[in-house]
Amino acid sequence: MRILILNGPNLNLLGKREPEIYGRKAFEDYFGELQAQFHEHKLEYFQSNHEGALLDKLHEVGFSYDGIVFNAGAYTHTSVALGDAIAGISTPVIEVHISNVHRREAFRHHSYLSAHCAGIIVGLGLQGYALGVQAIIGHQS
Amino acid sequence: MRILILNGPNLNLLGKREPEIYGRKAFEDYFGELQAQFHEHKLEYFQSNHEGALLDKLHEVGFSYDGIVFNAGAYTHTSVALGDAIAGISTPVIEVHISNVHRREAFRHHSYLSAHCAGIIVGLGLQGYALGVQAIIGHQS
Amino acid sequence: MRILILNGPNLNLLGKREPEIYGRKAFEDYFGELQAQFHEHKLEYFQSNHEGALLDKLHEVGFSYDGIVFNAGAYTHTSVALGDAIAGISTPVIEVHISNVHRREAFRHHSYLSAHCAGIIVGLGLQGYALGVQAIIGHQS
Amino acid sequence: MRILILNGPNLNLLGKREPEIYGRKAFEDYFGELQAQFHEHKLEYFQSNHEGALLDKLHEVGFSYDGIVFNAGAYTHTSVALGDAIAGISTPVIEVHISNVHRREAFRHHSYLSAHCAGIIVGLGLQGYALGVQAIIGHQS
Amino acid sequence: MRILILNGPNLNLLGKREPEIYGRKAFEDYFGELQAQFHEHKLEYFQSNHEGALLDKLHEVGFSYDGIVFNAGAYTHTSVALGDAIAGISTPVIEVHISNVHRREAFRHHSYLSAHCAGIIVGLGLQGYALGVQAIIGHQS
Amino acid sequence: MRILILNGPNLNLLGKREPEIYGRKAFEDYFGELQAQFHEHKLEYFQSNHEGALLDKLHEVGFSYDGIVFNAGAYTHTSVALGDAIAGISTPVIEVHISNVHRREAFRHHSYLSAHCAGIIVGLGLQGYALGVQAIIGHQS
Amino acid sequence: MRILILNGPNLNLLGKREPEIYGRKAFEDYFGELQAQFHEHKLEYFQSNHEGALLDKLHEVGFSYDGIVFNAGAYTHTSVALGDAIAGISTPVIEVHISNVHRREAFRHHSYLSAHCAGIIVGLGLQGYALGVQAIIGHQS
Amino acid sequence: MRILILNGPNLNLLGKREPEIYGRKAFEDYFGELQAQFHEHKLEYFQSNHEGALLDKLHEVGFSYDGIVFNAGAYTHTSVALGDAIAGISTPVIEVHISNVHRREAFRHHSYLSAHCAGIIVGLGLQGYALGVQAIIGHQS
Amino acid sequence: MRILILNGPNLNLLGKREPEIYGRKAFEDYFGELQAQFHEHKLEYFQSNHEGALLDKLHEVGFSYDGIVFNAGAYTHTSVALGDAIAGISTPVIEVHISNVHRREAFRHHSYLSAHCAGIIVGLGLQGYALGVQAIIGHQS
Amino acid sequence: MRILILNGPNLNLLGKREPEIYGRKAFEDYFGELQAQFHEHKLEYFQSNHEGALLDKLHEVGFSYDGIVFNAGAYTHTSVALGDAIAGISTPVIEVHISNVHRREAFRHHSYLSAHCAGIIVGLGLQGYALGVQAIIGHQS
Amino acid sequence: MRILILNGPNLNLLGKREPEIYGRKAFEDYFGELQAQFHEHKLEYFQSNHEGALLDKLHEVGFSYDGIVFNAGAYTHTSVALGDAIAGISTPVIEVHISNVHRREAFRHHSYLSAHCAGIIVGLGLQGYALGVQAIIGHQS
Amino acid sequence: MRILILNGPNLNLLGKREPEIYGRKAFEDYFGELQAQFHEHKLEYFQSNHEGALLDKLHEVGFSYDGIVFNAGAYTHTSVALGDAIAGISTPVIEVHISNVHRREAFRHHSYLSAHCAGIIVGLGLQGYALGVQAIIGHQS
Repeated sequence: MRILILNGPNLNLLGKREPEIYGRKAFEDYFGELQAQFHEHKLEYFQSNHEGALLDKLHEVGFSYDGIVFNAGAYTHTSVALGDAIAGISTPVIEVHISNVHRREAFRHHSYLSAHCAGIIVGLGLQGYALGVQAIIGHQS
Repeated sequence: MRILILNGPNLNLLGKREPEIYGRKAFEDYFGELQAQFHEHKLEYFQSNHEGALLDKLHEVGFSYDGIVFNAGAYTHTSVALGDAIAGISTPVIEVHISNVHRREAFRHHSYLSAHCAGIIVGLGLQGYALGVQAIIGHQS
Repeated sequence: MRILILNGPNLNLLGKREPEIYGRKAFEDYFGELQAQFHEHKLEYFQSNHEGALLDKLHEVGFSYDGIVFNAGAYTHTSVALGDAIAGISTPVIEVHISNVHRREAFRHHSYLSAHCAGIIVGLGLQGYALGVQAIIGHQS
Repeated sequence: MRILILNGPNLNLLGKREPEIYGRKAFEDYFGELQAQFHEHKLEYFQSNHEGALLDKLHEVGFSYDGIVFNAGAYTHTSVALGDAIAGISTPVIEVHISNVHRREAFRHHSYLSAHCAGIIVGLGLQGYALGVQAIIGHQS
Repeated sequence: MRILILNGPNLNLLGKREPEIYGRKAFEDYFGELQAQFHEHKLEYFQSNHEGALLDKLHEVGFSYDGIVFNAGAYTHTSVALGDAIAGISTPVIEVHISNVHRREAFRHHSYLSAHCAGIIVGLGLQGYALGVQAIIGHQS
Repeated sequence: MRILILNGPNLNLLGKREPEIYGRKAFEDYFGELQAQFHEHKLEYFQSNHEGALLDKLHEVGFSYDGIVFNAGAYTHTSVALGDAIAGISTPVIEVHISNVHRREAFRHHSYLSAHCAGIIVGLGLQGYALGVQAIIGHQS
Repeated sequence: MRILILNGPNLNLLGKREPEIYGRKAFEDYFGELQAQFHEHKLEYFQSNHEGALLDKLHEVGFSYDGIVFNAGAYTHTSVALGDAIAGISTPVIEVHISNVHRREAFRHHSYLSAHCAGIIVGLGLQGYALGVQAIIGHQS
Repeated sequence: MRILILNGPNLNLLGKREPEIYGRKAFEDYFGELQAQFHEHKLEYFQSNHEGALLDKLHEVGFSYDGIVFNAGAYTHTSVALGDAIAGISTPVIEVHISNVHRREAFRHHSYLSAHCAGIIVGLGLQGYALGVQAIIGHQS
Repeated sequence: MRILILNGPNLNLLGKREPEIYGRKAFEDYFGELQAQFHEHKLEYFQSNHEGALLDKLHEVGFSYDGIVFNAGAYTHTSVALGDAIAGISTPVIEVHISNVHRREAFRHHSYLSAHCAGIIVGLGLQGYALGVQAIIGHQS
Repeated sequence: MRILILNGPNLNLLGKREPEIYGRKAFEDYFGELQAQFHEHKLEYFQSNHEGALLDKLHEVGFSYDGIVFNAGAYTHTSVALGDAIAGISTPVIEVHISNVHRREAFRHHSYLSAHCAGIIVGLGLQGYALGVQAIIGHQS
Repeated sequence: MRILILNGPNLNLLGKREPEIYGRKAFEDYFGELQAQFHEHKLEYFQSNHEGALLDKLHEVGFSYDGIVFNAGAYTHTSVALGDAIAGISTPVIEVHISNVHRREAFRHHSYLSAHCAGIIVGLGLQGYALGVQAIIGHQS
Repeated sequence: MRILILNGPNLNLLGKREPEIYGRKAFEDYFGELQAQFHEHKLEYFQSNHEGALLDKLHEVGFSYDGIVFNAGAYTHTSVALGDAIAGISTPVIEVHISNVHRREAFRHHSYLSAHCAGIIVGLGLQGYALGVQAIIGHQS
C-alpha cells in the first residue's frame, strides 16, 4: 500500500518549539519509526505551511494512493477548501490531531474536514498517526 | 490488562435494526472477535440504555481497570454526568463512535465526554473499538 | 391491533398533583375509558420516570406492535436517545402532548422525537391520546 | 356544528403539483370525502394565497362558527398577523400540517400560530384534517 | 394639511374583540373624535388586512399628502416591504403602536419600519394617533 | 419561448421615486427595450405589491411558460410561500436583484427563493433582467 | 400638574457640541420655551451624568409628581437599575429620544426602560419632550 | 420536621475521588455531622446516579416531607424532568451546589431547577447543606 | 467579627414601594433584627444607588473586614466593575438576592459578581442576609 | 477588451473529479469555447489553489484590465483578504459560482467577496462565466 | 501640550492589590515617572470609580486639552455613555489597557470606546500610557 | 536589536491604491524613515500575500530576532495558523493595524493573533509601526 502522511501549518516546529516540554524529537524522526513499524507498506511524508501546497498535494496523490493520514493543524478549523479537496478526491483520508482539541478554544472544536474524512482520531499524541495508518489498512482490506 | 468495552443506548439494537443494511451480526458477536484479536488481555463488555447504569459501571471499574473503550451513543451529546464521571475516575477512557457523527445532525457534533477522554476515534465502524483497545495498550506502555 | 400507550416522567403525578386544578382522575382511570372506546383493539399502558426504561420498552415492543402513542414528557426536549430509538424501531410512533407546549418556556418548543415520529398531536388534553390511537388505526389501514 | 376548513398558500396546487408523487386528487375532492365522513356537521372550505384574505376570513367566521381547521402553509412560519387574528377571535382553531415539518428546514420548525391554537396536528397527511374536525367536536362537547 | 391615518391587520377588530375589555368603541368612532380635534386639517382613514393594499395606499398618497400616521400592526415586525415603501415615498410617516410592544413577545420588539419613519410613538393607547398628527403638524411647520 | 418578467413590491415606483437619482425611466419603458432585444421570444410583464397575487401568477404560468425572471423585491427576504411556489411549479425561475443586496442591511443577505431557483443574478442593475432572459434561453437549449 | 423633565448623560453637551450642526441652543434654553408652552403646569428640569443621581431623583419625585419625561441617553441601553426604578415608583414615566435610535448602532435598538414606561416617543427631536408632557397631561385626565 | 437530603450523579464519589484533594470524608460521614447539628429534626439521605430514581424519590416524599435539600449534580444543567418534578410536588426544595458553578464551564451556569426551587445556595462547600436545612426551618416557621 | 451588609440600587425603596405587597418594614428595620440575631459580631450597613460609591465602599473595607454580604440589585447583571472589585479585595463576599432571579427576565439570570464571590444565596427573602452572615462566620472558623 | 477569467481552489479538478457525473471536459476546454464566443475580446485564464497567488494576480491585472470574472471556490466563504483585494483594485469583478451555493451547507451562503463585486451570478453552471463576461462588456459600454 | 491621564474603576487599587504580584508601586508613583519622561508637556492625572465623574471630566477638558490617555477599566466593556462622550468632545482620546484583554473573559474583548478613539494600545503594561502620550504628541504634530 | 517589520496581504498596494486619498508613498518609503528613526537598531522588512510565506517567515526569525512588528492585514481575522505560529515562537510580536478596525465591519473586530501577542496597537496610522518598534525596545530593556 502507498500511504501519505500529510502535515499542515506549524507542525514543522515539533522538536524545536519549547523542547523542554515537547522533547527534541522532530516529526521527521517519528516518521522514521512509523516507516519501520509499517515496513511492508510505502509511507511518504509531506509538510507545508501553505494551504495551497496542501491542496496541490491532495490533488496529486488523491486519485492513486491507498490512503492519506492528514493532520491539517490550524487549517482544520478555517479551510473550506481542504474539506472540498478531500471530498473531491477518491483516496480515503484519516484526520488526525495530536492534542485533544476539545480541551482547547471553542474554535478548535469544529473541523471543516471531518464530514469528508473516512475517520477521525483525536488526542492520542503521535500514536494517532500509527492508528491512522492502521485504519487505512483495515479500511482497504 | 483489564479493559472494559462500554456501550450506551440503542447499541443493543445492532444486528436487529434494519438487518439488510447493518447486517445480522450483533455487537456480542463482534465482541467475540475482539476478544480473540486481543487474547492476551482481559476484555469485558457491558451495555445499558440507562444513563445511571453507565455511571454506576464507570464508578465500579474506574479506579482499577486499565482502560475503558466507551461508545456512549446518544448520551454523548446530552450527558454532562457521564463527562463528569470520566473526569472523576482514574482509568483512561477512549471515546468511540461507529458512524461519522460530523456528517449527521448538528447536535451530534458536540460531545460532553471528549474533553475528559484520553482519545477520540470517530467514523471507522466497528474497527474503531479495536483501535480504541490498541490506543489503551499503547497509552499504558 | 396491538397498541402501546407510553408515558414518560412525572405523568404518574396526574390526579395527585394539584387535584383542585387537574382533577382527581389518574391516568390509569383515563386509560380504562380509552380501552373501552377502542375495545376492538388491544391497548397496553406503561409509564416510567426512567429514560432507560422507556428505551427498553420501545425496543421490546417496537418490532411487533402496530403502533405506539408516546408522551415523553420532559424527555421530549432533552433525549436524543429516545429519538434514536424511535428511528431504529419499525413500529410507527405518534407523539402526544397534553398541554400546548408552544405556550410555555422556549425549551419546550423543540422535540428530539418529532422528526422520527409518524405524527404529532399537541395541546388537546387527554383527548390527544384517543386521536393518537385513531391516527395509528388510520395509518395502518 | 359549523366548521371551516381553511387552507393557505400553495395548497391549491395539490393534485396538480408532481401528480406522480402527490396523486391526482385535488383538495376539493378530499373535502368531499370529509363532508361525507362528518355529514351530521356543516363543513365549509376556503383557500387563498393571500394572507389578507385569510385574515378577512378568520374575522368573518371567527365569532360565530364552532371551529376552524387551519393549514396556513408557509404563512405558518412568517405571519405574526395570522397568529394575532387567531388570538383575537373566539372560535377555537386547530392547526394542521400535512407533512412532518420537523423533518424539513429549520425555519419550518417554528409556528407563529401554535401558541394561540386549541391544538396542533402534524405529519399525518390528509387524515390530519379529519382528526382536526374530530378534535373540535370533542373540544366542544 | 392632508393627513392619512393608516391601520394594518386586525385593527378592524377594535370594538368587536373582547368588548368587555377593549370597550365597544370601534376605531371608526375614535377617528371621528380625531377629526373633530384637528378640524382645521383634512384627515382620512384607511384600514386593510392586506400587506399589498397597504403598500398600494402608501404609494398612492406618499408623494402628495403632508403626513401619514401608520399603525402597521403585526406587519410592523415582519414586513421589509412596508419599510421599503416608507423609505421610497416623500411624505413623512409617524409609526404608532397602541400597546407597549416592549412588554410583549420578543419578536414585537423589532420593527422593520422604524428606521425609515420620521418618528415613533408607542404604548400611549389611542392618544398615540393624536400625538402622531400633532408631530406631523409640528414637523412641517 | 414564452417568458414572464415578474416584479414584486415597490418596483412600480421606479421612475417615480427620487427621479433625479434613479432617472425618469419607469420599468415599463425598460421592458419595451427588453422586448426589442429579445424580439424572437414572447416576453410578458407583471408587477404586484401583493404577495398573494405573485403566488397566483406563479401558479398560473408555472406549468406552461418556458421561464420566469423574478425580482421579488422585499418579499425575497421574508416569503417562505414564494419559495415554496417556485419549488412547486415546473417552469425554471431566475432570481434577479437590481442592487447589490450584499452591500445593504444584513436581513437582505438571505433569500427564501434562491435555493429553489435555477440561477441568481445580483447587483447588475436593469441589465440583470436581460442576463436572466438569456440564462433561460441558454438553460433550455 | 407637577412634571419633571429628566435628562441623562451627555445631554448637557447640547449647544456646545458641534454647534454648527446642532445649533447654539442649550437644553436649558429649550426648557424655557417648554415652560412657556405649558405655563399652566409646573415643569422642573434635572440633568446628570451620574446613573446614581438619576436613580436618586426618580426615587425623590416618583411618589408625588404627576409625570416624568425621561431621556436617559446612553443609560437607556445599559441600565437595568433605571428600569427597575421606573417599575418601583408610582409616577408615570414617558421615555423620549431626540434622534431615531433605530437608524443607529444595533445596541441602541434595545431599551431597558421601555417595558416599564407609560409610553415611548422616538426620533422627533426636541419636539418629543413637548409631546411627552402632553402625553402625561392626557394620561392623567 | 422531616427533611430529605438528596444527592445526584457522581456525588457518591466524594471521599474516593482524588482523596489528597477532596479529603477522605465520604458524604455519608458528613451526613452524620449534619444529623448531629440538627438533632431535633428528622434528616434522611438518598443518593442515586439514576435520573429516574431521583424523580421517583421526589414523588415519594414530595407531598409529605417538610423540605428537600437537593444537589442534583450534573443533572442540574440537563434535566427538564427534575425541574418539572419540583414544580409538581408541594414540599419546598432548596437547590445546593458545593462548588461555585459560575467559575466553571458555561453550561454549568444554567439550572433547569432554580426557577422552581424555594431557594438556591451555591459555592459554600458542604456548609451549603447545613444552610439549606436552616433555610427550610426558617421558611416553614 | 466585622461584617458589612452592602445594598445596591433601589433597595432603599423597600418599605416604601407598594407597601401593601412588600410590607412597611424598611431594610433599616430588618437590619436591627439582624444585629440582634448576631449580637456577638459587629455588623454595619451601607446602601447606595451609585455604582461608584459601592466600589469605593468595597475598596474601603475590603482589606480589613471579615466578610461582606452584598446584594448588588440591578448592578449584579451589568457591572463588570463590581465583579473586578470583589476579585481585587481580600475580604470574602457573599452574593445575596432577595427574590428568585431565575424566575424573572433572562438578563437577570447572569451575574458578573458570582464568579468572584465566596458563595451565592438566592430567593430566600430577607432570610438570605442572615444565612449570608452565617456563611461568613462558618467560612472563617 | 481585456478580461481575466480567474478560478480558485479545486476548480482544476473539473473533468477529473467524478467524470461520470461532471463529464470529462476540463475547464481549459470550456475556456476555448468561451474565447471563441467572445473572439472580439482578449480573454485570459488563471487558476490557483493558493490564496496568495490569487491575490497577486488580482493586484497584477486589477489596475489595467477591463474586467475579471472570478470564481473563488471555497475561498469565497473564508477569505477576507480576497474581498479586500477586490475593493482595492479598480477593475470591476463579477463573482461567479457554478453550483447553486444556496442549496448547500449554510457556510456557503455567505461570501466575503460579494459586497465588493460589481455583480454576482450563481447556479447557472459554466454558462455563468459567459454571462459574467457579457456583464462586464455591458457594464463598460 | 496639555494632556490628561484618565483612569477608571479599580485602578486606584494598583500597588495595594496583591502587592507581591503587582508590586507596591501605586499609579501615582508611575505618574511621576511619566511626568519626568515628558517634562516639556503638562500632564495631569484623574481617577474615579464613578462613571458619572469620568463623564464630567471628559466634558470639562474635552474641548481645550490636546489629548487624553484613557484607561476606562471595566467601564470599557459596559459604558455606552463614555463612548458617546468621547465622540462628543473634540480632544483626541487614546484608549489604553494595561493587560492583554484578549487573553481574558470574552466580555473583555469588546470595547464601547474603541470606535470613537484616535487609537488603541493594549497589553503593554504601564508602558502603554507612555506610548499613548507619544501617540498624542505625534498625532498633533 | 534585530527587529522584523512584517506585513500581510494587500499592504503592498499602499501608494498605488487610490493615491489621491492614501498618497503616493509606498510602505517601502515609510520603512526608510523608520530605519532612520531607529538607526541604532537593525530593522528588516518583509511583505507577502501568502499566509504560508508569513508562517515560514515567523518560523525563520522567531527564535533569534528581538521582536516582530506584525500587521497581518485581513489574515488577522481569519488565520488560526498565524496565531498558533506566534504562540509557538519565542520572539515577542506586536500586532499593529493602520486603520481603526473597530469602526469597520464586525468581522474585523476579532483577531486570532491578539491573545498571543505581547501588545496590540490600533488605529494610529503608520505611526503605529514606530510605536510598535518602541514597545519592543521598552519590552526588552
